[in-house]
Parts: sequence; structure tokens; C-alpha cells
Amino acid sequence: MKARITVTLKTGVLDPQGKAIKHALTGLDFKGVNEVRQGKLIELDLDDTDKDTAMARVTQMCEKLIANTVIENYTIELE
Amino acid sequence: MKARITVTLKTGVLDPQGKAIKHALTGLDFKGVNEVRQGKLIELDLDDTDKDTAMARVTQMCEKLIANTVIENYTIELE
Repeated sequence: MKARITVTLKTGVLDPQGKAIKHALTGLDFKGVNEVRQGKLIELDLDDTDKDTAMARVTQMCEKLIANTVIENYTIELE
Repeated sequence: MKARITVTLKTGVLDPQGKAIKHALTGLDFKGVNEVRQGKLIELDLDDTDKDTAMARVTQMCEKLIANTVIENYTIELE
């Protein structure tokens, strides 16, 4: 089973990487870009076959390692 | 309009970040993780209201700045 985790910064948390991208886009003459936020995408290939077990395990992985839940949100999609 | 860009490494390109995450998950006793790949997620808030124009512009942004098309693939979703 494949899991796709997206980790994004919570609203209000400063995002210097996003700011740098926005600045670079403006420098390349792309107008009308109001905000840029950068997050992470993590794709896992798991042995699990049961969706509920997989979801519980991946949630544990996010809480323990992948996301810093003080400043980041995460979403999990299973395929 | 919001655009959500995912940038992932092409198959065959080494992913040391993914490897490090896999190693850390194994260290935390999560079993059955076969592969981990890390990508980037970039969220843009654009002034554009027309979907076709926005898609063309964001594709240009990806080609010129956001993705390194030699080693990375990108997908664009508009909302």
C-alpha cells in the first residue's frame, strides 16, 4: 500500500522558503503572486494491506517523526 | 485562485532525504516500510481568475524556477 503524506506549516508560522520563492518569482517577472507557502511531501511504500491499520501506523509515524505538530499540519492519503 | 504544485524526484534519482527518513522509521521500530521518497509541496495564491491562463503561468513558473526538470517531475492542481 502507498501512503502520501503532506506536511504544511500552520497558518501564522513564518515561511522563509516560501518568501524566497515568491521573491524569485517576482524577479522573474511573474506578477500577481500573493503568497507562496512551501511544504513537504513524503511518499511511503508499506507492506500493510489493511487500510485502517495502515492509517493508524502512518499517523503514528507522522506524530513521532515526520511532522512537528507544534508548527506543522499533516494530511495522509492512502492508495 | 490557489495552485498546489508537487515536485517529486524522478524514478532512479537517488533520494538521501527519503533514505534518512526510512532509516529513522526503522530505528523507531516501524516495520514493513519498503521505500520512502521525499518531495516538495508548493502552494501559490494567485490573482488569476481564468483556469487556463493560471495553468499556463504556473507551468512556466515550474519550468523556470520551481522544478529542476532534469531530475524532478511536477504536477499542478488548481482550486
